[in-house]
Amino acid sequence: MNTAAMPGIITLTTDFGSEGPFVGVMKGVIWARHPQARLVDLTHEILAHWPAEAGFWLSRAYRYFPRGTVHVAVVDPGVGTSRDNLVVVADGHVFLAPDNGLLAPVVARGKDARIVRMGAAALGRLGIHRPSATFHGRDVFAPVAAELAAGRVLPEQLGEPTDTLVPSWVDDPTVEPRSVAGVVITLDHFGNLITNIDAGLIERFRLPLVHAGHHAFPLLRTYADTRPGEYLALINSFGVIEIARAEKSAAEGLGLSRGAPVIVRDRTDQP
Amino acid sequence: MNTAAMPGIITLTTDFGSEGPFVGVMKGVIWARHPQARLVDLTHEILAHWPAEAGFWLSRAYRYFPRGTVHVAVVDPGVGTSRDNLVVVADGHVFLAPDNGLLAPVVARGKDARIVRMGAAALGRLGIHRPSATFHGRDVFAPVAAELAAGRVLPEQLGEPTDTLVPSWVDDPTVEPRSVAGVVITLDHFGNLITNIDAGLIERFRLPLVHAGHHAFPLLRTYADTRPGEYLALINSFGVIEIARAEKSAAEGLGLSRGAPVIVRDRTDQP
Amino acid sequence: MNTAAMPGIITLTTDFGSEGPFVGVMKGVIWARHPQARLVDLTHEILAHWPAEAGFWLSRAYRYFPRGTVHVAVVDPGVGTSRDNLVVVADGHVFLAPDNGLLAPVVARGKDARIVRMGAAALGRLGIHRPSATFHGRDVFAPVAAELAAGRVLPEQLGEPTDTLVPSWVDDPTVEPRSVAGVVITLDHFGNLITNIDAGLIERFRLPLVHAGHHAFPLLRTYADTRPGEYLALINSFGVIEIARAEKSAAEGLGLSRGAPVIVRDRTDQP
Repeated sequence: MNTAAMPGIITLTTDFGSEGPFVGVMKGVIWARHPQARLVDLTHEILAHWPAEAGFWLSRAYRYFPRGTVHVAVVDPGVGTSRDNLVVVADGHVFLAPDNGLLAPVVARGKDARIVRMGAAALGRLGIHRPSATFHGRDVFAPVAAELAAGRVLPEQLGEPTDTLVPSWVDDPTVEPRSVAGVVITLDHFGNLITNIDAGLIERFRLPLVHAGHHAFPLLRTYADTRPGEYLALINSFGVIEIARAEKSAAEGLGLSRGAPVIVRDRTDQP
Repeated sequence: MNTAAMPGIITLTTDFGSEGPFVGVMKGVIWARHPQARLVDLTHEILAHWPAEAGFWLSRAYRYFPRGTVHVAVVDPGVGTSRDNLVVVADGHVFLAPDNGLLAPVVARGKDARIVRMGAAALGRLGIHRPSATFHGRDVFAPVAAELAAGRVLPEQLGEPTDTLVPSWVDDPTVEPRSVAGVVITLDHFGNLITNIDAGLIERFRLPLVHAGHHAFPLLRTYADTRPGEYLALINSFGVIEIARAEKSAAEGLGLSRGAPVIVRDRTDQP
Repeated sequence: MNTAAMPGIITLTTDFGSEGPFVGVMKGVIWARHPQARLVDLTHEILAHWPAEAGFWLSRAYRYFPRGTVHVAVVDPGVGTSRDNLVVVADGHVFLAPDNGLLAPVVARGKDARIVRMGAAALGRLGIHRPSATFHGRDVFAPVAAELAAGRVLPEQLGEPTDTLVPSWVDDPTVEPRSVAGVVITLDHFGNLITNIDAGLIERFRLPLVHAGHHAFPLLRTYADTRPGEYLALINSFGVIEIARAEKSAAEGLGLSRGAPVIVRDRTDQP
């Protein structure tokens, strides 16, 4: 990583919601160390205590930022326990998160991923001592992100390299010759059900049909390719299978949410 | 438009809510092209698929930003279909949105509005090719906004000028000698009911009375001019008629929401 | 205050929520006057019309920003009436808010607090004339914050110094030899119940037990020090007593919210 080329962008992804100044004080801590940092919220509406959703979005969203961007993700039910904090470098981007499975999708999809386990000595050299037991976003991740984005420390200098990290909370899709089985991993504001099934896994299917909640949906190109109120499936703008309902909420209509099983079958497989 | 004077501010208005990184990746795309851009969210809580509310707010809010600000609005149920994307220049500001009626209130209120229909060739010259079928906010509007805010392209260079655009989803208020009839166009966080009736339409009324939901409300100056729990109408800080309930939600109390009819009558008209 | 050292950071705290462009236009007004200002949202989810919550968060959060930061807080049920607008300088930070008790916790906790009552003449010299009756956030606080952050005006130049301000809406905790009684002052997104009881008030207790809603909770170090679903109390990352439920919502589980009484007793006091 060429620190001279760091764009100074830091993205923030948490399950903190918008109540209270939790995200705001992280930004204060960052600006106190790196006044030129440009800060952007990815989302703070990750389902509470579910790192899988944050990891999914990070792994799909990072490429829309310039290389050298520092991505901070804090979904951290184990804060204050002995769980480690990680730095991952992948595809020219830097990712910071607790070692709780959150970064597994980034490591799986990113090119040449390198993992560093943050060490107390390295943090101490940055003046990060005795963080609170309940808010590492403010006390560890924010100052580390600032130093990385400022180019004053390299990921490798933050601790020891490692090859292992806590695995994802959600299994990768199961791939069979004529079907792929995954889950709903996140919902958007419209109630679209977004799965962890990458479009590449079904590109060999001649007539894919998407099954969820005792229904089956055809794969169309965009929402308006059917009538308002009708269900459809599509490959969404982040390259995964999504179940939608034109101008309505598929989540409400089907009574489905995160974790719901979704299977894509090649219709040529059916009798 | 003097591109040398572009302030580099881009405002964002959508119906995306705060779930997922949809707004965040638009900002990543903008900063990748124009690192100095200053980004500001107007609101992402526009009622899903209702461009009228976005157009109302844009037409009332843009003047609080410096001239040369680029305003991006994405409420886009027809994304991926043959609907066009528009650039409007009005009153020294630049507006980008799908051609679905969203910008009609801006064209109606803005001085010397000029409309350009974005063309594929012009977008191609900016390196914008084959956008996704479901997220033009990220794939078209964000990069175009960045280029405009950077002063590297002029609105006129983005396509062909046009005089027509899809009309607003909401009729203009009906003006009679002693009454004006409009609708509730948006609600704020307090449950105040904000109408599309401009204060100028009733300034000739000697004793205006605001009628909605089988009730009538006097026109007062500010919320605290009545007792907590009491209803009132006022000319709000954006210059339109608003129905409020002091320290309570008028929307909940009256059971009214967007689209509800509101009539202002001159009391001198009553027997 | 050394205006040359102003970092140009302005924080915003309101009860405006995320609907409509209310916060956005405040930012537009600030940038129109001070293009270099760096803007950060603390929270816009303060309980509507309850300044006490905003004051609590401000008094606990400001220290995570550089000195010279300007903090704007607008929770303002009396907007447009004769209530005054205040500037407070404390601990090297600047605070702007209506004189409705909001800033009382800042004055109580901040070092060497100085209070200035904004005057019409001083505002007029800044070109701030005849604000709307309903939105001083945009028409008074935003432009004043911009001028302060730009170092073009000093707090003392905004009006007359004063020693009095409207007191807080919430009493300070009652301190007895072996108990401290306070209230829930805010909730976070996880449903943790955050009180106004500073950890310093109970540090002499040998075995503190936290009582709320007919239950008593032990004081632990962090959320994961108990099993998911179990209740606990802790000293949170802002230095106050908090009642939590591991990986669940204490607010929902206990049916408690803002204003609920909380008493910390020294267990050695019990028979």
